[in-house]
Amino acid sequence: MVKIDLQFVQGLTLEERAALVSGKDFWFTAKVPGVDRMMMSDGPSGLRKQDIDVAPTDVNNSVDAVCFPSSALTASSFDDQLLFKLGHHLGVAASAEKLGVLLGPGVNIKRSPLAGRNFEYFSEDPLLAGRMGTAYVKGVQEEGVGVSVKHFAANNRENQRFTSSSNIDERALREIYLAQFERIVKEAQPATLMCSYNRLNGTLNSQNQRLLTEILRNEWGFQGLVMSDWGAVADHVAAIKAGLDLEMPGKDQASVDEIVQAVKEGRLQESTLNRSALRVLQMVEKWGKDVSRTESYDKEEQHEFARQVADDSIVLLKNDNQELPLHTGGSLAVIGELAAKPRFEGGGSSHVNAHHLVTPLAAAPTNAKYAVGYSLTETAPNEELTKEAVQLAKQSDQVVFFAGFPERMETEGFDKDSIALPANQNALLREVLKVNPHVTVVLQNGSVVEMPWADGVPAIVETYLAGEAVGEATWDILTGKVNPSGKLSESFPLRLQDNPTYGTFARDHDEEDYHEGIFVGYRYYDLHEMPVRFPFGHGLSYTDFTYSDLTVSEEDNDVKVRFTVTNSGQVAGKEVAQVYVANHVSRVEMPVKELRDFTKLALAPGESKTVTLTLPRRAFSYYNVAQEQWEADNGEYEIMVGSSSRDIRLRTTFTLTIGVNPVGEITGDTYIGDIWNDQDPKVQAALKSSGLYEVLQPMMADKDWVAISANMPLRSLAATGIQEEVRDAFLRALK
Amino acid sequence: MVKIDLQFVQGLTLEERAALVSGKDFWFTAKVPGVDRMMMSDGPSGLRKQDIDVAPTDVNNSVDAVCFPSSALTASSFDDQLLFKLGHHLGVAASAEKLGVLLGPGVNIKRSPLAGRNFEYFSEDPLLAGRMGTAYVKGVQEEGVGVSVKHFAANNRENQRFTSSSNIDERALREIYLAQFERIVKEAQPATLMCSYNRLNGTLNSQNQRLLTEILRNEWGFQGLVMSDWGAVADHVAAIKAGLDLEMPGKDQASVDEIVQAVKEGRLQESTLNRSALRVLQMVEKWGKDVSRTESYDKEEQHEFARQVADDSIVLLKNDNQELPLHTGGSLAVIGELAAKPRFEGGGSSHVNAHHLVTPLAAAPTNAKYAVGYSLTETAPNEELTKEAVQLAKQSDQVVFFAGFPERMETEGFDKDSIALPANQNALLREVLKVNPHVTVVLQNGSVVEMPWADGVPAIVETYLAGEAVGEATWDILTGKVNPSGKLSESFPLRLQDNPTYGTFARDHDEEDYHEGIFVGYRYYDLHEMPVRFPFGHGLSYTDFTYSDLTVSEEDNDVKVRFTVTNSGQVAGKEVAQVYVANHVSRVEMPVKELRDFTKLALAPGESKTVTLTLPRRAFSYYNVAQEQWEADNGEYEIMVGSSSRDIRLRTTFTLTIGVNPVGEITGDTYIGDIWNDQDPKVQAALKSSGLYEVLQPMMADKDWVAISANMPLRSLAATGIQEEVRDAFLRALK
Repeated sequence: MVKIDLQFVQGLTLEERAALVSGKDFWFTAKVPGVDRMMMSDGPSGLRKQDIDVAPTDVNNSVDAVCFPSSALTASSFDDQLLFKLGHHLGVAASAEKLGVLLGPGVNIKRSPLAGRNFEYFSEDPLLAGRMGTAYVKGVQEEGVGVSVKHFAANNRENQRFTSSSNIDERALREIYLAQFERIVKEAQPATLMCSYNRLNGTLNSQNQRLLTEILRNEWGFQGLVMSDWGAVADHVAAIKAGLDLEMPGKDQASVDEIVQAVKEGRLQESTLNRSALRVLQMVEKWGKDVSRTESYDKEEQHEFARQVADDSIVLLKNDNQELPLHTGGSLAVIGELAAKPRFEGGGSSHVNAHHLVTPLAAAPTNAKYAVGYSLTETAPNEELTKEAVQLAKQSDQVVFFAGFPERMETEGFDKDSIALPANQNALLREVLKVNPHVTVVLQNGSVVEMPWADGVPAIVETYLAGEAVGEATWDILTGKVNPSGKLSESFPLRLQDNPTYGTFARDHDEEDYHEGIFVGYRYYDLHEMPVRFPFGHGLSYTDFTYSDLTVSEEDNDVKVRFTVTNSGQVAGKEVAQVYVANHVSRVEMPVKELRDFTKLALAPGESKTVTLTLPRRAFSYYNVAQEQWEADNGEYEIMVGSSSRDIRLRTTFTLTIGVNPVGEITGDTYIGDIWNDQDPKVQAALKSSGLYEVLQPMMADKDWVAISANMPLRSLAATGIQEEVRDAFLRALK
Repeated sequence: MVKIDLQFVQGLTLEERAALVSGKDFWFTAKVPGVDRMMMSDGPSGLRKQDIDVAPTDVNNSVDAVCFPSSALTASSFDDQLLFKLGHHLGVAASAEKLGVLLGPGVNIKRSPLAGRNFEYFSEDPLLAGRMGTAYVKGVQEEGVGVSVKHFAANNRENQRFTSSSNIDERALREIYLAQFERIVKEAQPATLMCSYNRLNGTLNSQNQRLLTEILRNEWGFQGLVMSDWGAVADHVAAIKAGLDLEMPGKDQASVDEIVQAVKEGRLQESTLNRSALRVLQMVEKWGKDVSRTESYDKEEQHEFARQVADDSIVLLKNDNQELPLHTGGSLAVIGELAAKPRFEGGGSSHVNAHHLVTPLAAAPTNAKYAVGYSLTETAPNEELTKEAVQLAKQSDQVVFFAGFPERMETEGFDKDSIALPANQNALLREVLKVNPHVTVVLQNGSVVEMPWADGVPAIVETYLAGEAVGEATWDILTGKVNPSGKLSESFPLRLQDNPTYGTFARDHDEEDYHEGIFVGYRYYDLHEMPVRFPFGHGLSYTDFTYSDLTVSEEDNDVKVRFTVTNSGQVAGKEVAQVYVANHVSRVEMPVKELRDFTKLALAPGESKTVTLTLPRRAFSYYNVAQEQWEADNGEYEIMVGSSSRDIRLRTTFTLTIGVNPVGEITGDTYIGDIWNDQDPKVQAALKSSGLYEVLQPMMADKDWVAISANMPLRSLAATGIQEEVRDAFLRALK
């Protein structure tokens, strides 16, 4: 094995180095003397390793592999350990398949319910997305397989994704769209990041020096490689200069030629090329596999794990009058074609050639009777199918109704224009409810669904895209074999129109303006005090949890939050306790509250656990745009602990002292009210000595005028007839 | 009289010229040999000419003058002629008082219901604000009195108004916040503009070269003078350089000294100083008055006009089961201290020493009985007053309940934090409704009120701040002596929380981010399909109007909209017919519809009038930020004609051809779907000759993949395995 260093790179020919910075083809890096090629494959939720002889666009033709739940569901686990184990299993499979790098997970923020790729992303919240992503990456990489975290960054729509510009203010960019990448880079050191297609504030991400170099490397200390999303490079030379290392896929000899020519013409420095070529070789050295070895792994064990992930992630959205678990002994109807042909995985790069699909119909209790009800390939109600399903519902004690989005409605590559279920599903559900009130709706979908019928249905179970064990896991929850513990990682609004992006999302072909700034998901619905169908963090259990004994204290530059959770019900269960922080001190826009930590607790009936969560200073920080840094302001915060973002069980106020004091220097622009109320003895003394006190005193004592007077800056006192000398004397006295 | 020209200015001493560019004091320009001083006064709704001996802060001590309704009410007239007449009367009064320039009207957009100065502004819609402002300015200036149109620009909050930055994207700035100033400047040539306190995208308006010179003068051709709002100048030299001409008020000798020094030190060119000094002298020459003359005017006639303005502007918000006009003969209760102590004018610079206030109580029918009901100086319910009022209501056939905001809740100088009525008013109203369902609520307020009780009240009348004839006008409407014809110039949301600025407005002391962009007022509520309490343009009548026969056609580079309105009821009345345009063609963010014209028609019972409104190209234009120009795209528009923004009576689609074709050049960034669907024969030929047609044909025929394929740009075809040669051949063939 050769030693990979700059000297080695410099010893390669220009053509060899030029070859390295593009893929050899769709899935491999280029070979150079002494270093073999390395393979990568898709597969955030299971391997999509294509045969080399298969046309690249034949995405559904790949190796046999276990299909795990998509990230939309796994994030609902709120369980770092589970995600680590998921990474472990993926790493085992990738390693066995001799893959160097696994392309995924996608950690972009779910900004609009219409975004076509939401199923592949974790959350609307950057803390949750970052935590899930970090655990996943660690799990994979511990098995010797590198991860490519995607899509960096702000790739939040599919329409015109190759050219549209995500126009985001700096604070929202830092707090919402980059924060999860920052966490993963700092905590998990992923092998690579995949830069996305879109532009960011006008600059193509693949050519974005600020993003790929200044922020990613200089600020965050990223040491890995940056590759492009497939086809994201428009100008290869500009991209390398900005910090991209590897163009994917390669354009064959054309890729080599354009680099060689650029170097020869002086448009690209050799040192820049060498830097990227070295990163490619270092990646291959660290993560490349000996392709001559053979290895196998236990796919049935992985199938069982896929089931466990789904069990721990499926969300019980509604359960009036203990409709669930299903009562045993009665008659049971299973309605809906999705029971037989489940939607269990995402499309595009997420598609897996599933090892062992178990459908909900196949896994159904033996006493269940089935009616197709509607056709997945149609949207209009079918009279025959409706009649049959209604008849079955009428004769049954309980009904499990499978509903969801067919794959043609949501996949990589384009955005949705509605989040309503197909008309035939909604219509059939209405008919079924007329003859049987005991209906449980089981949802299969990549992202948010409108549920106009929610009030009339006693139980709703959200399974998202649950992977190949969808059938077993669904019945685990429905029958109570498993007590549900998933929580929504995104808000379900009452109507699509309630979303802040409604009407503007993907309206402009070239520009996507992020009007809502930091107010994404629950941050928006909370700000406007809007009702939602199901809030962020929501998820029910078959048992009850009580919260008690909240204390908050500063310790060693951190803040400790302690509380106790008790399982006060009759069955064992798991609870995701969520810690939200409300900032009442900073004089900038602030969400009502933000998720700052969470933990998942397994509790036997009657059992209590006291947990201590450690919130770092960052949990109290916002990104100060003017100062270009994170800032925690000292002062009053509210700490809320709850079972969802809208089911806060404990709250207390708390004064932070480990931050900075948000008091600025007094200048001519400082407002009288702020000066008058400033408790600083120096300020008080200057007021007196300068004579300003005597001038202001009657103004501040006049209750009809105090509000107006307090709202004038020092420099404009002249407009009230006050002498400039007095003001200047005051400012001098402060020096 | 001397000849005022640059030569004259150059003949003045440096000190004299320096003195000219600041006010001599609070209300006067400086004198120089040969040119007398000129006085200005506040008073958008009536003169607030202060005695020279009065302290400037004693704002309520001014000459006797007729108090007209505030702009919040006059805009509700939707009547250009009425505003012209209002200007005429103000001009007559100002001329008689020897004023050179009248400071007002304020034409800022009502962005947030919390903004403290909304009462002084016209509308949330720039067309309405611009039309009202234009008519007003023409009316005043025809009487030889100049107008200072304020506050230029984007001064939409009061808190920290001297320093806070209004951060607005360019399109919203042009379409919403500048459009009304642009119209007034171009159509009415106001003598002066008053630049506002705030910063705009970081730069203080008084120092904003782009705003004061590039846009105002170079683009719009403004010929007048720019003065500062009182105290808005932070750096006098920087302000003059940017295009400010006159600092108000002056800082006495300090103002002169700083200019003289700057010139001597070379920090200010004499030519720049001369330019502004000349503008001051030209203003005085054109608008200054001979102070030795005496003049009088008929204040009683003006009082009658004030009543007529209110009559034509008051808005009948609700009138279930013909609760109004009040039935004659029955007993009548008048409840609420606002009947006796009406809120009829704005505070701060709007305050007038009213000539002849007639309160609603004084003007009430002789059979009316009165109960105070609540105290304006308190917010908690008063048991005694409540009991008395409820008792009176119980004994009466009909109740007129006066409600509104006390002045301490809304005035210039600070923003509100609620739009709820004081608790005692809401509480009393609930009690009264329990004993008598025949309640008419009369509102006195500067801007939007939350009405949680609206569903339970049969009639609601919005009188805003109705001027000194408030009493007479209120009863004119209530008794049916005048048939109401006012329409809301702003949306009344169900809750403050529904407003797009909720939770962020005035939250940051330094920065106010205009997140909603162009989606202000009804443009926002429409976009999100939100219910509102009362929509923009809403207002009822005692008669009915029917609309018919809409036709739309292009004529001579304009679009003619023709329709007929018929009074199909029993009494004479006036109707404001509103024309909205919906753009279905441009690929940029677009409101659902925008007000593009309106007209007010007086119709006898049974009478019909056919009107033809002329919409210029601008009515179909948006501001194209990249091109830095207004652009009307050819294609399909919808024309809607209605009685309010949510009561559209006629609609038709219409294809515009006088604009430009929104088709861009085909490049590597053009999407396949757009190319495939391009009907241009040249494009079709290039597809065939290059061989691209054959490559794309199977992709576009595959219904599972067409959505994804169509959403790829030419340049990324390599990612699907398509040869670059084919793409390049296609692009070459297009040349």
